[in-house]
Amino acid sequence: MAVSKNVISAMESSSWIRKMFETGAVLKSKYGQENVFDFSLGNPNIDPPTDFAKALAEYTKNVKPGMHAYMPNAGYQDVREKIALWVSKTEEVEIPAANIVMTCGAAGAMNAVLKTILNPGDNIIAITPYFAEYDAYVANHGGQLVRVSSGDDFNLSPENIEKAIDDKTQGVIINSPNNPSGKVYNEETIKKLAAMLERKSKERGRAIYLLSDEPYKKIVYDGVKVPSAVKAYKHSIILTSYSKDLSIPGERIGWVAVNPAAEDIANLMGGIIMCNRVLGYVNAPAIMQKVVAEFQGKSVDIDFYKKKRDRISEILGNIGYEFTKPEGAFYLFPKAPGGDDLKAVDALQNEKVLVVPGRGFGTLGYFRIAYCVSDKVIEGAAAGFKKAFDALKK
Amino acid sequence: MAVSKNVISAMESSSWIRKMFETGAVLKSKYGQENVFDFSLGNPNIDPPTDFAKALAEYTKNVKPGMHAYMPNAGYQDVREKIALWVSKTEEVEIPAANIVMTCGAAGAMNAVLKTILNPGDNIIAITPYFAEYDAYVANHGGQLVRVSSGDDFNLSPENIEKAIDDKTQGVIINSPNNPSGKVYNEETIKKLAAMLERKSKERGRAIYLLSDEPYKKIVYDGVKVPSAVKAYKHSIILTSYSKDLSIPGERIGWVAVNPAAEDIANLMGGIIMCNRVLGYVNAPAIMQKVVAEFQGKSVDIDFYKKKRDRISEILGNIGYEFTKPEGAFYLFPKAPGGDDLKAVDALQNEKVLVVPGRGFGTLGYFRIAYCVSDKVIEGAAAGFKKAFDALKK
Repeated sequence: MAVSKNVISAMESSSWIRKMFETGAVLKSKYGQENVFDFSLGNPNIDPPTDFAKALAEYTKNVKPGMHAYMPNAGYQDVREKIALWVSKTEEVEIPAANIVMTCGAAGAMNAVLKTILNPGDNIIAITPYFAEYDAYVANHGGQLVRVSSGDDFNLSPENIEKAIDDKTQGVIINSPNNPSGKVYNEETIKKLAAMLERKSKERGRAIYLLSDEPYKKIVYDGVKVPSAVKAYKHSIILTSYSKDLSIPGERIGWVAVNPAAEDIANLMGGIIMCNRVLGYVNAPAIMQKVVAEFQGKSVDIDFYKKKRDRISEILGNIGYEFTKPEGAFYLFPKAPGGDDLKAVDALQNEKVLVVPGRGFGTLGYFRIAYCVSDKVIEGAAAGFKKAFDALKK
Repeated sequence: MAVSKNVISAMESSSWIRKMFETGAVLKSKYGQENVFDFSLGNPNIDPPTDFAKALAEYTKNVKPGMHAYMPNAGYQDVREKIALWVSKTEEVEIPAANIVMTCGAAGAMNAVLKTILNPGDNIIAITPYFAEYDAYVANHGGQLVRVSSGDDFNLSPENIEKAIDDKTQGVIINSPNNPSGKVYNEETIKKLAAMLERKSKERGRAIYLLSDEPYKKIVYDGVKVPSAVKAYKHSIILTSYSKDLSIPGERIGWVAVNPAAEDIANLMGGIIMCNRVLGYVNAPAIMQKVVAEFQGKSVDIDFYKKKRDRISEILGNIGYEFTKPEGAFYLFPKAPGGDDLKAVDALQNEKVLVVPGRGFGTLGYFRIAYCVSDKVIEGAAAGFKKAFDALKK
């Protein structure tokens, strides 16, 4: 075996999301695209705003010398300045351009930050259910992911997190609105978390960084507000992308913003910028930096997803599925009827409905529905959701 | 100190190239852009072909649903097919689309491949002088870079490489045309290397992969041919980008092509695709995949760089610098007059001429000139090259 043993074992336990996505491809070629109802992947099904398409076409039409050349690893200075202005305003924390790093999406942001803060054997806390790639991202840099349960309402529990913190804890990842639960942590929760982290950081004499993974921040419903993590806690880092709110996940563009009050700030910024380079990203894609800079605060039509959330909630509720109605993002995370997520996924797959088992997010007994799909898929799946439910409840 | 110790120490010994680039920025703001002669960075100074600009503008103008969405982690199937066709033709090895992975440039390609083949403690051989980021790329994945000397003519020595191979050697990186020497390994050399690697792989019962880093393959002079590494050796992987030959380094687009005869091919391909995902690249930028697919075999005007190579060679030769005339790429790697590369770099910096010391490429006593700069910079630096030479030879 010439390939790395770790990589082979990682492939064997590979991403459930991708596994289901690939199963979907097989089923679609067998039964026809229209007969498979694929809720496996968080691939936004609304196109970017018309303005975005126009701005991109305009930018590429006006050829300028060096427009595709290397720029500083942290990104174009003017782009960083625009984002700093926007972040400072919305987060109500003065964040200078020097604390913004343009990245290859939130995944690139997360890897650059994790490499910067992790010594071999250190750990990072994540709250179940969580985006399963965190495991791989932390492992990439010699760290370990420590899972902390969120409890039944998918809220985070500062008490549970506190119990999990040890000398090796370098950070806590939060993701609100949450993938896969759709949960948004309210201001009180964030304040309690911040107070606990502040106290623990002081006790240890070394900061615990809060990594706030926010790609769904603009996708919230019913007037829900996502409180500012960076305002609540000084050792805080925002990691985000335009993948979901501008529907451009294939372009790999996002950024990191670091609270200037964070401990060891010079090394932190220098480290993130260097890691952005040495991890092989080098810099975020040039064109996209320039185009997204003009789209601060803009997004696709959120009502598009709200309608889907409402409809899928109605369908599942009528059948009898138990779930918490999502406050944001475009996922729904119901309990597996009968309690076994793999059995539920299989029963749904028998009906050609593809979802991802909860264990793919560190949480047994649930499954994830990515409802960023066409209404046809949602309506077409209704009968399958019913049949699988009945079969599982037998 | 809250930041990773490894990262802090890496920052301290950070890239000489970037260090000189940053020194340049300081000098330029002090003395004026036109009074500093910056040869530090391999940032192509010719714009992409007009056709490329047109194709990009055209592609972005024709808005299509899902054109910025996620695609398979390995890249768009049609793009992989186009590249497979081209590579199969030019390398004279049948490489299927399944063996092509679209990446975030050659740096992204290198990291995905290295993560795939490296177990902790494994090593990778590189031939001095080499692109210094290899050290970081190998270290990212728990490996060690082993440096093998190329000898005075910058050719590679299969004998030296053989001596360095041990049980932990997972691969050998070659980079031809070479950064920083401009050397192109000829067919005989590549065949000898391949024969040695074949024999060693058999002896060990486990393949040693050949990682052929080829971003400068199209930038060659005087009719020099770059022989196919992938044709010469079955356990071979091409890693490349469009950064240099299409002048689009800021866009981060490249690919990996794997010889289908390579050992453990299924794990190798699965691993590279998975690592492309979990390293946070997720996929190569969507737009650029589609646009470069139409530019197989095309490049900027190579004569543009040839003229610069000839002129800088003339200037340095007349002064008395010793160097091997580059056969490709856009770098020149002269001996440091007096023998000390740091002293030479300082003496040149006194004349506001910025170059990178040889130790930045694992080779003392030389320095690198990136001549992908305007003629004005070349001509403007002539007097400084002379003065520094005289000062160093005193």
